[in-house]
Parts: sequence; C-alpha cells; structure tokens
Amino acid sequence: MIEEILSHYLPPIEAEMRRVLDLPGDLLTGHYGMLRYHMGWVDQQLQPALVNSGKRVRPVLVLLACEATGSPADQALPAAAAVELLHNFSLIHDDIEDDSPTRRHRPTVWALWGRPQAINAGDAMFTLSRTALAGLPARGLSAERTLEAFHIFDETCLRLTEGQYLDMSFENRMDVTVDEYLTMIAGKTAALVGASLELGALIGGSAPDQRQHLAEFGRHLGLAFQIQDDILGIWGDEALTGKSAESDILTRKKSLPVIYALRSPEVGPALASRYTQPMDIADIPEVLELLLRAGARQYTEQMAQQATDLALEALHASGVLFEQNQAGQALLELAKALLDRRQ
Amino acid sequence: MIEEILSHYLPPIEAEMRRVLDLPGDLLTGHYGMLRYHMGWVDQQLQPALVNSGKRVRPVLVLLACEATGSPADQALPAAAAVELLHNFSLIHDDIEDDSPTRRHRPTVWALWGRPQAINAGDAMFTLSRTALAGLPARGLSAERTLEAFHIFDETCLRLTEGQYLDMSFENRMDVTVDEYLTMIAGKTAALVGASLELGALIGGSAPDQRQHLAEFGRHLGLAFQIQDDILGIWGDEALTGKSAESDILTRKKSLPVIYALRSPEVGPALASRYTQPMDIADIPEVLELLLRAGARQYTEQMAQQATDLALEALHASGVLFEQNQAGQALLELAKALLDRRQ
Repeated sequence: MIEEILSHYLPPIEAEMRRVLDLPGDLLTGHYGMLRYHMGWVDQQLQPALVNSGKRVRPVLVLLACEATGSPADQALPAAAAVELLHNFSLIHDDIEDDSPTRRHRPTVWALWGRPQAINAGDAMFTLSRTALAGLPARGLSAERTLEAFHIFDETCLRLTEGQYLDMSFENRMDVTVDEYLTMIAGKTAALVGASLELGALIGGSAPDQRQHLAEFGRHLGLAFQIQDDILGIWGDEALTGKSAESDILTRKKSLPVIYALRSPEVGPALASRYTQPMDIADIPEVLELLLRAGARQYTEQMAQQATDLALEALHASGVLFEQNQAGQALLELAKALLDRRQ
Repeated sequence: MIEEILSHYLPPIEAEMRRVLDLPGDLLTGHYGMLRYHMGWVDQQLQPALVNSGKRVRPVLVLLACEATGSPADQALPAAAAVELLHNFSLIHDDIEDDSPTRRHRPTVWALWGRPQAINAGDAMFTLSRTALAGLPARGLSAERTLEAFHIFDETCLRLTEGQYLDMSFENRMDVTVDEYLTMIAGKTAALVGASLELGALIGGSAPDQRQHLAEFGRHLGLAFQIQDDILGIWGDEALTGKSAESDILTRKKSLPVIYALRSPEVGPALASRYTQPMDIADIPEVLELLLRAGARQYTEQMAQQATDLALEALHASGVLFEQNQAGQALLELAKALLDRRQ
C-alpha cells in the first residue's frame, strides 16, 4: 500500500525538483552540481547516478493533503518540491554544523567541496525552495493564496533555524527541560511536517478549520516520529536502522530519554557527570543502566504514544477519513507506517 | 546633501528592521541576539550599543526609487528592510566562508559564537529578509505586485550565491577571464543594487520600461562601485580606506586589475607564479611593478568609468531627473557620491 502511494506520487515530485535545479550554464556547473549531488541525481564527478536519496515523505504529504481536501495533487507540486528542497537545504547546513562527513552512505557536500562552498550551496538550495513555491500561480492558485503559502513557508524556515539553534545550544547544557526539548523538536522537525500538511490543505481549498486540523496532524506526526527516532537511536536494532545501536549515546546526544533521566534526582547527577566527559563504547552499559533506573525508555515510549494519539485525533477531526476519500485514507496509512517503524 | 538624504531616510528603515528582528522570547534570546549584534544594535553581551553598522545605501536606494516614481517612500519600507537584511545575511555567511575574524572593527558573528551557530544565524537572517518583504501588502501593495517583488528578490538571492560561488572558485584559478570576473561581480554585488532600484520602481508604480531603466542604473552603479573598490584595494589611501594599502595584494584577491594583468602575455606568467605562492609585505613592490607594466590600473579605471557612464545614462533614460522630482535628483546625488569615492 505504502509502496503504491509512493510510486504514484514520487515521479512527478522528482521531475518538478529537477526542473527547479536545472543547470543554467557551463560557468555554474559546479555550483548547481553540488545541489544535484546532494539530491542523489549525480555522483561526485557530476555524472548521472541513481542513489538512495531519502524517503521524500514530506512532499508526498503535501500532495495527499491537497488531494484529500479537494484539488488535484498536481496543483500542489510546486509546494511539494519546495518543502523537500527546504528539507535538503537544512541537511546540507546541518551536516556542516554537526561536522558529519557522510550522509546516506556518501560523503556530504562539505566533505567533498569544503565548508565555504557547501555553506553557499545550502544558501542556493534555500533560495531554490522558494523558486519552486513561486510556481503555484502557474498551477492556478490565486496570488492571495500564494502569498499565504509564502507566509506559512517563511514561518517554517524561521522555526527550523530556532530549533537548530536550541539543538546546538543544548550540547553544552545538562539542565535542559523536557519542555525545552519539545520546543526544540517542534521547530527542528515538527514545523516542516506540519507545514507540508498545511500547504497541501491550503492549495486543496480547505476551510480554515480543516487546514488547522491537518497542520496539527502534521505537527504531532513530526513530534511522534522524532521521539520514535530518539528511542531507536538508543535501543534500535542495528540490523534494521543501519546505524550502530546506542549511537546517540556515543555522540552524547541530548535526546528525550537522556534529558528525562538527567532530571531524575536519583540517577541525574551520575548521568550528568558521565555526559560531561568523552564517551567510549565501554561506557555504554553504564549509561544504559542509568537510563533503565530512571525509567527513561518507558517515559519516552509514553510520549511517543501520546503524540501519535494526538496526530490521529487531529486527522480524524479534519474530516478527510471517509471511505471514498482515497487520499485521506492514504494519509492515514502513511502516518501509521511512519509511526510503527523499527528503522 | 548626502547627509541630509541619509538622515531623512535612515531612521524609518532602522525602525522597520528592528521590528522584524524583535526578540520572540527568552529561550531564543541568543539566536536573535546574534542577528542584533551583527546589525550593530547590541554588543557581544547583547546589551544595547550603537556602533558603526555600515552605510545602508541599498535600502535608501529602494525608498528613493519608490518616491521618484510616484509613491510615498513609506510604502517601500518593507522592501528597503528586506534588501538590507539580505545584504547582512550574505555578510554573515561570507565572513565564515572567507574566514574573516573582524568586520567594522568588531569580531564577526562566527568569531564570537562559532561557525555552526553563525551559519544558522545567517539562515535566520536570510529568512527574516523575506519576513520583511512580506510586509508589503499591509502597506497597500496588491498581492500580484507583492509576488513580483518576491520574484525579483528570489532571483537576486540566486545571483548572490552564483556570484559567491564564482568568487570562491576563482581563488585556485590563474586563467579567469575578464568576462568571468564581470559575471561574478554582476551576481555578487550588482544584482542586489539593481534589485534595490527595481523593487523601489515596482512599488512606486513604474511602467515596465522605467522599471528596467532603473534596474539597469542600479546594476551599473553596483558594477562601478565594485570596480572602484578593486582600485582602492590596491592603490587606495590607507588613511581614508581604513584598510592597509595593497591589502588585496596580500590576500591575493583576484580583483579586476590582477585578472587583467594575468592575461597579459608580457607580465602574466610572472604574476601567476607570484600569485601561486603565499604573499608577504616584501613581495608587494614586485606585484605593483608587474601591474604597472601591464597597464592594469589604467584599464581598471577605464572599466569603472564605462560602468559609471552606463549607470548615469540609464538613470537619465528612466525619466526621473527633472527638477521637480526631488527623489530623482537625490538618486543622482547619491550615485555621484558613491562613484566619486576615495574610501
């Protein structure tokens, strides 16, 4: 079912993004080449390639929301491309900021072309996400609605930078609260998923109520997905996730289980003193033991479940879940698949 | 005269930008604080300060173009703020890319808060430049015109990244042509000055012809200014420019005089071999001698003059230079002041 949905919606999304990232001329081949490499369309010699380019879930959500609320999915293609390009802009810059040399088993843009060019390439991807969005009037959307779409998009960009700021500022803090953590992932992860649904609904022609319910669905879906990710980053099955188990412990990531355990009067001080020093594989059992004693896994799973429940409630409230609404049903299927994951 | 123009137009521009960069809450004080520091409004402890924050020429050009073409300058304030914030976004990222620890006699954002936070702060400034532009409908501009403004703005952002890409890619090349150089500064410098005039004219209500003439005026003004800058970077008076004379030689910058001389059959090879090695103060006389023999200064001055002539021609062709048009006259005065500079 999920494969069917994706194979139906992905090709036009890919074509739309390729149009936006088309090469404008010889002199700039290298500039646009970095972007096309990041998208997985060319290899590092800029020769055509087809590699794993990520799940592209967000743009599919845009199209489904548009279709579920009454307009042909095609009308939302510019927004779908915009959302995916914006996501990829943030990955290019995140990889520099996190000093990550690989992504999806390939060297990152900065690892190949250096940080200065990679920062600038990210800026170009950022701009091109808006170039994509500006294609909405040509698909029949009114100027007023298009401006609304730009507004949603710009607010989302700002939330992304705020979330990223908080994430980086947490690195040196041992007193992060759960609320602060939730604010961080609301910006860094949930805002863009919420915007995907909201843009689709706006273009689909939703009334404000329905649009808000779908945006809410997207935000809780994003939160649930991220909290799930935090669980997998510590207790995931390496064979399925492709990352070494406990990888978030090794990198001392302030994910939700850790933040929760750091606040525990019983194990917090011991965990904090562990997290202020470099972490080694040999230290992992001790950290796992502290997390267990704090009940961190159980707590985090409850939080994931809560966000999942709220997401599905909002989807129901949006009114797109009647049987004849195939796109609405597909939204539900996709959400379930995203939330019931082991990788 | 220039002081009068600036003192009239700058305060509302500054107020508009401060509104856009307002602090949204305690948790994000540090994030927005970096932006406010960069703008010169606070010191590095984020306490109110008033420091030299650059010339703010571009936003004044926006307002003058709007007024000269028939609408009150206030209507263009969102675009003026947008253009200046975009310029400042590019400075934050350029400083990282160029590894520059100081700007306007203060530490740069990355030098104070590290590269990861500075990249992200630049992204926030980039986004906020569009938040500023989105204020146009509230000042009475139609949705259609506002979308046109977004289009001009996004194209300009793309040109900025293209110009920056070329500038960085020139660093390792000895065979850059004058045409390639002109393409680079057209993107890196001239596009935003052109956009400032074009946005002002669009908001002012210009017919397409007049709008194009004013955009053309801006682009040539930007080119002339940049070429002038290249001359000052090698032969400027240190007491006036505040930079050490010949600073562009020490940093081996591929400015126009150098590119021209590198193409000279007579001195090119010697200069190229000099420019492939680290440069020391003791090497400067030799480089100056090679530039002299190539006639590089004379050539560059001719190019600056040519761009100046084209700028003034386009301004005349735009039809804003009749006596009753005070804003049109002010554009001419400002252009002359910018082009006849020694610092």
